[in-house]
Amino acid sequence: MTIDQIKRLLIGSPLRTRQLTHEKLPKWKALAIFSSDALSSVAYATEEILLVLSIIGISAYVYSIPIAISILVLLLVVTLSYRQIVHTFPSGGGAYVVAREHLNIPSSLMAGAALMIDYVLTVAVSISSGVAALISAFPVLIPWKVELAVFLVLTLMLLNLRGIRESATVFAYPTYLFIFSILVMIGVGGTQIWKEGWHGYEVQAANQIGDIVTWTGALLLLRAFSSGCSALTGVEAISNGVPSFRSPAPRNAAITMMWMSLLLGAMFFGITLLAYAFGIAPKEHETVVSQIAEHVFGRGPLYYLIQVATMLILFLAANTSFTGFPQLTSIIAQDRFLPRNLAMRGDRLVFSNGIVLLSVLSILLIISFNGDTHGLIPLYAVGVFLSFTIAQWGLVKRFLNEKSKRLFRIAVTGLGTVITGLVTLITLVSKFSEGAWMVAFAIPLLVWMFYLIRNHYDEIGKELRVDLHSLPKKVKTKVIIPISGISKVVAQSIAYAKGISDDVVVVTVDFDDEHAAQMREKWEKWNPNVPLIILRSPYRTLISPLLKYIDTLEKEKEEDEFITVLVPQFIVKKWWHALLHNQTALLLKAVLIYRKDVVVSTIPFHLHH
Amino acid sequence: MTIDQIKRLLIGSPLRTRQLTHEKLPKWKALAIFSSDALSSVAYATEEILLVLSIIGISAYVYSIPIAISILVLLLVVTLSYRQIVHTFPSGGGAYVVAREHLNIPSSLMAGAALMIDYVLTVAVSISSGVAALISAFPVLIPWKVELAVFLVLTLMLLNLRGIRESATVFAYPTYLFIFSILVMIGVGGTQIWKEGWHGYEVQAANQIGDIVTWTGALLLLRAFSSGCSALTGVEAISNGVPSFRSPAPRNAAITMMWMSLLLGAMFFGITLLAYAFGIAPKEHETVVSQIAEHVFGRGPLYYLIQVATMLILFLAANTSFTGFPQLTSIIAQDRFLPRNLAMRGDRLVFSNGIVLLSVLSILLIISFNGDTHGLIPLYAVGVFLSFTIAQWGLVKRFLNEKSKRLFRIAVTGLGTVITGLVTLITLVSKFSEGAWMVAFAIPLLVWMFYLIRNHYDEIGKELRVDLHSLPKKVKTKVIIPISGISKVVAQSIAYAKGISDDVVVVTVDFDDEHAAQMREKWEKWNPNVPLIILRSPYRTLISPLLKYIDTLEKEKEEDEFITVLVPQFIVKKWWHALLHNQTALLLKAVLIYRKDVVVSTIPFHLHH
Repeated sequence: MTIDQIKRLLIGSPLRTRQLTHEKLPKWKALAIFSSDALSSVAYATEEILLVLSIIGISAYVYSIPIAISILVLLLVVTLSYRQIVHTFPSGGGAYVVAREHLNIPSSLMAGAALMIDYVLTVAVSISSGVAALISAFPVLIPWKVELAVFLVLTLMLLNLRGIRESATVFAYPTYLFIFSILVMIGVGGTQIWKEGWHGYEVQAANQIGDIVTWTGALLLLRAFSSGCSALTGVEAISNGVPSFRSPAPRNAAITMMWMSLLLGAMFFGITLLAYAFGIAPKEHETVVSQIAEHVFGRGPLYYLIQVATMLILFLAANTSFTGFPQLTSIIAQDRFLPRNLAMRGDRLVFSNGIVLLSVLSILLIISFNGDTHGLIPLYAVGVFLSFTIAQWGLVKRFLNEKSKRLFRIAVTGLGTVITGLVTLITLVSKFSEGAWMVAFAIPLLVWMFYLIRNHYDEIGKELRVDLHSLPKKVKTKVIIPISGISKVVAQSIAYAKGISDDVVVVTVDFDDEHAAQMREKWEKWNPNVPLIILRSPYRTLISPLLKYIDTLEKEKEEDEFITVLVPQFIVKKWWHALLHNQTALLLKAVLIYRKDVVVSTIPFHLHH
Repeated sequence: MTIDQIKRLLIGSPLRTRQLTHEKLPKWKALAIFSSDALSSVAYATEEILLVLSIIGISAYVYSIPIAISILVLLLVVTLSYRQIVHTFPSGGGAYVVAREHLNIPSSLMAGAALMIDYVLTVAVSISSGVAALISAFPVLIPWKVELAVFLVLTLMLLNLRGIRESATVFAYPTYLFIFSILVMIGVGGTQIWKEGWHGYEVQAANQIGDIVTWTGALLLLRAFSSGCSALTGVEAISNGVPSFRSPAPRNAAITMMWMSLLLGAMFFGITLLAYAFGIAPKEHETVVSQIAEHVFGRGPLYYLIQVATMLILFLAANTSFTGFPQLTSIIAQDRFLPRNLAMRGDRLVFSNGIVLLSVLSILLIISFNGDTHGLIPLYAVGVFLSFTIAQWGLVKRFLNEKSKRLFRIAVTGLGTVITGLVTLITLVSKFSEGAWMVAFAIPLLVWMFYLIRNHYDEIGKELRVDLHSLPKKVKTKVIIPISGISKVVAQSIAYAKGISDDVVVVTVDFDDEHAAQMREKWEKWNPNVPLIILRSPYRTLISPLLKYIDTLEKEKEEDEFITVLVPQFIVKKWWHALLHNQTALLLKAVLIYRKDVVVSTIPFHLHH
């Protein structure tokens, strides 16, 4: 089986460029497809808040309610602001494009870097969290946590290299299954509370509020808030997907966005409330959602339904990065800030290199954080909110440049910019030592890399630019044929060499004088009308005497003349025959390529045995 | 630090061919150098006998004495026979050369295979046994048994790649230290027995002899005998080293051989006797010699001296293989039964490839047998005795072909042949299931491989043979330059192509019609007087449309015409710049080389940025 056959088996036959089509989606389907990333974050957001609060103590869990409320307010602001983006950039903007067009290059690159990091983190966090849902239900899988996560990323990679149609109806099911099962859980749980009353920690908590009004306490509350902000990751997805909506696309997208935020807010707040009411604390190998589900339904079919739905929507959420990341890197690569091959579609019409890059980076992240969602969360929100801020700031600038200044729009987007900017700062500061420093370090590093790459391309572009008025002139070459003895290969090489130049020499390296004399004698007997030069090698190496000889030729030759070294290559019938022939030719080729004006020509000799 | 610098640091500067010299050795030094392999085997031979006897029971240890005596007889026969070899082949024969000259090719290849296997086993057994001596003295090293053994082999490899002078006096010390310390141990131990009387198992044993006279018992006794025969490994070393003796070399070598056998016999029998007298049984992590030494001296300085001397002589014994194996494989490779590069001296004048091959094989063996001497021993003796038999049989044939038939010589060598032949059979049968089957399988496999290799070289030789009366004629080539856009690289390639042929085409692969049209327009504006061919690629791959185009050209071209594909290669300034340029050229080169009559020429373009 050849490599090509294995590739075809895994990712399918190549597709033609004109098979690249766009399907227009109805709202109900668009909601399912574009909001899996945002909605799935309720699977971990509440838990992350509680986890930070648990540092203070059980009494602090009461703060999860006001924190959740402020996150709801934030969600409202971001949603209103992004409705403006949807209307203003109906072709689907994304922070990178918005900033490039309405702010400046550095801001757009900063947004690009932040988004790239976030796409990688979305995969790592969603997959880790999905695996957490799975092992909550099936603790037998605990030892395979990391392996499972890596396997899931690789599966996503293969599916996306094949090129999955995101618009497929099959993608709508898990989202609605998740929404449905979570809402049922909140409903049933709420009824239970209604009937049986609260039995959380509210009483003790109320008595101890005074204890934590300190700087440390305040910082921890901010950190808990930042952790909860991970609930907002992915709300921008709809604004990137406007072109996929049925017309009137912007209006439909804006309506879908409102629905998504409503569902997100309801589920997030419901889960936070239930967790508090049931007195649930984070556990190492069981998620908070799993504990709530168990509390509400017991370990029955409905419990398992919730776990599976959570797992599936998180898998879908990770999958959205596999569309977003390669698209983003292809745009950045087209601007020549990333390697060119990230901008080329593979034979299945997808940006294969971007898909592979995303997989490798997220697998590295999962392995270094041992598949632990909590470890990854502090890295997460900084980039998201930074890109929110830049995108909205770009929008404000655009509105300000318009002739008819519409004050309401400017106010809404301006408020959004200020608030998300503040949240970016809060997240960065409150989680700096927990991991946000890595992102604070990585974003400028990436921007620096972008500039290095662009600079290289620019310089090379200048260097390679051809003057259309100067035409290439015929340039002569000297041909050198290194040989070890007289054979048909040599005869073939000489025939070819005579065809391309009048200046041909045959060179051989000899270890002892006797053998050299025999060689000379045989050569003169044959007399193929080409000079034979015998180089002596006291150290029995072939390469260095040859290189020295080529050095002298390089000094003697005319300015623009070339030297062609003709290297025969045996093409063997069986792989192991290669072991029986000297691989000096390979070594010679590897060394010669670094010489200026030396062309290395490989002339094949197909062996029949 | 370059690879070359690391190589120089590890193995030293290259040496000139004329630095290859031979020193003539006095007998005392020759004894030390050539007999380390043979003498060192007393470190494990007795233990191997006892180990087999322990299967029957403690009572069977009494058989170690008659077994040792029969091995002494065998040693006498082999020594007398090899004295004839020394006199008859003063240039140093070795079973492979003797058989090639006086028997036939198959026998010599069989001897060659047996010897190759034995050299590998000598390294594996000696090093494992040396490590066993070390861990007997320092049990703290037990967990590092295999790692230590591998480290020692690698050390030997490096030393030999540097090219150590086997004749160095430093090599004589460990041998004499070993002889001296073992003889002292036997002397002191013997005195202790003389004074204190025997306290072994002799009484019980005498009463139970009847019990083991069964087929199984007999087979076990033969197996014990075969294991003890490992004491004889290496006795042929002197016969290979005759040219290194001072003249009269054969006479001196024969005398040295007698001394070696005498010492070997005395030490082996002494150790076996002491082990029996002291009632010593094999233990897992302590050797029999260590137990005897402890019994005689206690764990004092003399005990540690014995362990260190044992370790050192075994290290030297392994080292003899590093001379023998590369020499043998270079002779076989000169006969074209092994890959040619085994016959080439490296830049330190040693057969580097043979040294590396031996190291790799013995490390594999050590690892698969977990550094266990007992596991390796059953594989050992078969090859040794097979090569003894073949060498002697060759000698008998030679004597029979001489005009004046000297009956005494024929009788001695004939007896040797018959007896070693018998021992080969006994070893093979009695240890077949213990591991001898591997050797029985490996020898024919190697012989088959020898023939395959020789056959390939013969066929290739015929195929490549040039008719000295037919001279190479000038042959034309068509030149194809694949390009992706118009640049200086293209201009350079066209200049070179025009210099080597009048038939040049530039080919580009395009994914969309618009871009293709622009390209065509720009090309006509430039007009470098070379046709541009635009290939369409619906699947966005570059390689396959190019290959199809070359296919058509191959069909159209004249019989002996060549097609040259000119592939530009960017030589970047910094390694990471390579990531920014398409590596399609590499792929193209790898694919094109398998085409008939297609020459791939790499034209370098040195980037300045």
